[in-house]
Parts: sequence; structure tokens; C-alpha cells
Amino acid sequence: MSRFKLTLEYDGTPFSGWQRQEDGIPTVQGMLEEAFADFLGEPTTIWGSGRTDAGVHAKEQVAHVDIEKSYAPFAIQGALNKRLHDVPISILKVEEVSDDFHARFSTTSRAYEYKIINRRAPLALEKNRAWWVIPPLSLEAMNEGAAYLIGHHDFTSFRDSQCQAASPFKTLDVLKVEQKGDLIVIKAKALSFLHRQVRNMVGTLKLVGEGVWPPEKVKEILEACDRRAAGPTAPPEGLYLSEIKYD
Amino acid sequence: MSRFKLTLEYDGTPFSGWQRQEDGIPTVQGMLEEAFADFLGEPTTIWGSGRTDAGVHAKEQVAHVDIEKSYAPFAIQGALNKRLHDVPISILKVEEVSDDFHARFSTTSRAYEYKIINRRAPLALEKNRAWWVIPPLSLEAMNEGAAYLIGHHDFTSFRDSQCQAASPFKTLDVLKVEQKGDLIVIKAKALSFLHRQVRNMVGTLKLVGEGVWPPEKVKEILEACDRRAAGPTAPPEGLYLSEIKYD
Repeated sequence: MSRFKLTLEYDGTPFSGWQRQEDGIPTVQGMLEEAFADFLGEPTTIWGSGRTDAGVHAKEQVAHVDIEKSYAPFAIQGALNKRLHDVPISILKVEEVSDDFHARFSTTSRAYEYKIINRRAPLALEKNRAWWVIPPLSLEAMNEGAAYLIGHHDFTSFRDSQCQAASPFKTLDVLKVEQKGDLIVIKAKALSFLHRQVRNMVGTLKLVGEGVWPPEKVKEILEACDRRAAGPTAPPEGLYLSEIKYD
Repeated sequence: MSRFKLTLEYDGTPFSGWQRQEDGIPTVQGMLEEAFADFLGEPTTIWGSGRTDAGVHAKEQVAHVDIEKSYAPFAIQGALNKRLHDVPISILKVEEVSDDFHARFSTTSRAYEYKIINRRAPLALEKNRAWWVIPPLSLEAMNEGAAYLIGHHDFTSFRDSQCQAASPFKTLDVLKVEQKGDLIVIKAKALSFLHRQVRNMVGTLKLVGEGVWPPEKVKEILEACDRRAAGPTAPPEGLYLSEIKYD
């Protein structure tokens, strides 16, 4: 038996998220498992680095798979991409790895990018690829607010009610906001995140950027340890899983 | 009567190009004219800076329209964007202009960008938004080849057989190739271009980048004044109309 690490990209628009669901509901894991089953002639399980919600994209997602027969990595890549031709999932890289590699448990960091397009006009080229925000956002205020979230904290205020993590404590290594014309990108990096933590942080920073809340309010929200204290969840179409690191 | 300049963006994927066609064939001009007719309650003609082919995108396209009744520019923008909600066309800006402004005849330069993604893996996030090219391309060779095309030349070798321009002579002000990771962007700028000139130049530079042709071959192709001497037409999905300038 050989274990393979898969690096992949997907447009999340047509999928009900990463995780396999019942027959007929299109998910990224489901499509990958179907493609593997067709290629190998037997049911196959794929393990992802983590789930993404419906509509969330990945520039870089990592998964692993165990295969009985021996295959060259490029042959797996070719066989899978051929079978995924009609869906927006692409296998960027396949590597043989040792048996102790685990796509979820071996990660040393995960990074996300969140794209906002800040303008009056609706989105055409970036429809389903970014959050359209009309009120002008202040980059400076957003970065000032973001700074309160960096570090080791109880992130209960930014945690989805469906979150299954054992603890609300996480260490946020990076949270920064960059701007180029009407494009605003929020970059976040941590060993791991709570469910919807990035989208909930973005929803709060957007209100800070608009001037609805002062940047210092973010500290209060964090300390409240209450989801109702923070802003609404930012929509999924702006979020990209962007980097998964391993030792 | 007032004349308005419209600046717009579109995703060309679902459209049979810019130019109005018979009923039922979706085109950008057709959609805009329908939206105006619905807003103003009468048939309306839109004049574009130039046509784009089926599948070609615009980050910036300019058009003008004459309206009998007096409207504030932002009211026109809002009314149009509301009616274009279900199609990937967005009115970025509306400005009232003088009667001697003409979207096509008043331009002082047009710019295009052509996106290539140069990698083994198929496109997922950039499907229909870039040309997927597998063989590794040499940026240096492409730029060396591009340099032969800059200036005032007879561009017959890069002119589509359907081109209606009176003369094959054009002055190409900019043609440069830039790279960032696996993304290659070819930028072109001129007062005007022949039909499919940009896609035909890109199709040739791609073969130079692959090493099929040496850069000097571009000079020979240009001097041949024969469409058959150049490379094939690059696909539409990589092309973006990107800037239209006026005095």
C-alpha cells in the first residue's frame, strides 16, 4: 500500500462544500472519491486537510489517499484530472509520502485569503469570486482592528454555533489587510481555525472598515466571548483556502 | 438630448461577443440596449469603443448613448445595473459628455491584456478566464519576439480574414510579456488593432515561448505579410479589453 499527498485547486461555487454528503449532492470530496473509485475500480476514501463550506474556494487544498496498487504520481494526476474534466477541481500535484503523513493531523499551518471588492458597481468578472462591499472601507481602521485578534485567544465570539472543536482557544499568527485599487485582501494564518472563524472575523472587520465600529471595539468583542457581540458572517464566495504547510 | 459615456466590465463567457445580433443570441451590446429600452421605454442604440469576440472579456469597455430626457448619471448607472443583475455585465461609471464625444472615434488608445496559465494541471479557478498552456514558456524569448512587432508595420500576417479595416498598417505602442509564478500576462497597446490582431500575436509568441520558433522568426513572419506565416489564433478566454483612453 502507498500513501499519496494530493494538492488541489477548486472553484467552490457549484459545490456544497468539501465534505462528502448523500448521493446527488455535489461536494469536492465526493467528486474526488468518485473519480478515484472510477480510476481504481473500488471505493476509495480521501482525507482532506480540513473542510471548506459551500461556495468557499481553494487555491491550495491538500488531501491524502491510500492506494493498494503501485502507481507513478503523474499517472494518478493525469487519471484524476481526466475524470474531473467537467468540474472546476484540478489536481495540481501528486506526491508519494510516508505512512505517517496525514493531510489533517500533520499540518503545521493553514492560510486563508478573503477577497473584497469595494466599489459602487456590482461584480461581473469577480462574481462568485469576491464579496461586493459598497461603503468605502478604511484599510487603516481594519488593520488596527485586526491587530487585537492576533495571538492566543478564546475565539468564542468568532466561532460558529455548529463548531465541533474541543476548545475555543486558537493562536492566530497572521491577520492583515492589504489593498490594491478597489480590491481588499484579508490574509489569515494559524495552525488551525474554528468553524467559520475567518468569515466571522472578516464580517467584523468590514464593520470596522465602514466606521460602524471603532477599531478598539474588536478587543471588546473578543473579550465578550459571545458570538452575538461580533459582526455577521461574511459570505463564502470571498474566501479562499490558500496554503497548507507540513514539516 | 444628452450624451452619456458608459464605462463597463463584463465576463465574456456567456456572450456571442459585443455586437448586437438577431433576437435570442446573447451579446453585450444587445443586453445593454435591452436594459436601456426597458429603462427609457423606447428603443435605444449604444455605440461601443469597438467589438470584442465571443468569450473575450472586458475589464474596461467604453460606450456612449444619447438620451432625450434628462437624468443624473448615477440614476442611469443604478437603473442599468438593476436590469443587468442576472448577467455578468456591470456599469462601472456613467458620465455626461459633450455631443462631440464618440466612444469609437474619440479614443486615443486601446489596451488589452492576455492571460496565460502555464502549468501541467488544468484550470479550475481560472477556467474560461485564461489560456491553459502546458509546455513551459520562456519569458525572455517571448519578449524578444514581441519586440519585433512594436512600431508602425503592415500587420497582414496577424490580421483575421474577416477584418474590415481599410489598411493593414497599424502602430503598436506596447507589447510586453510579464510573469508571476505560473501566470503570464501579455500587454498590448495601440490607437487601434486589426481584427484578432492581439490573439494572433499571442498565438505566435506562445510558439516562440515554447521554443518551436526562435524569436527572430517573428520578424520574418511580420515581413511575409501572409496570415499563414504566423501561429494559430490564441483562444478568446484569455483576452481582456483593459483600457480605453480619450483626451
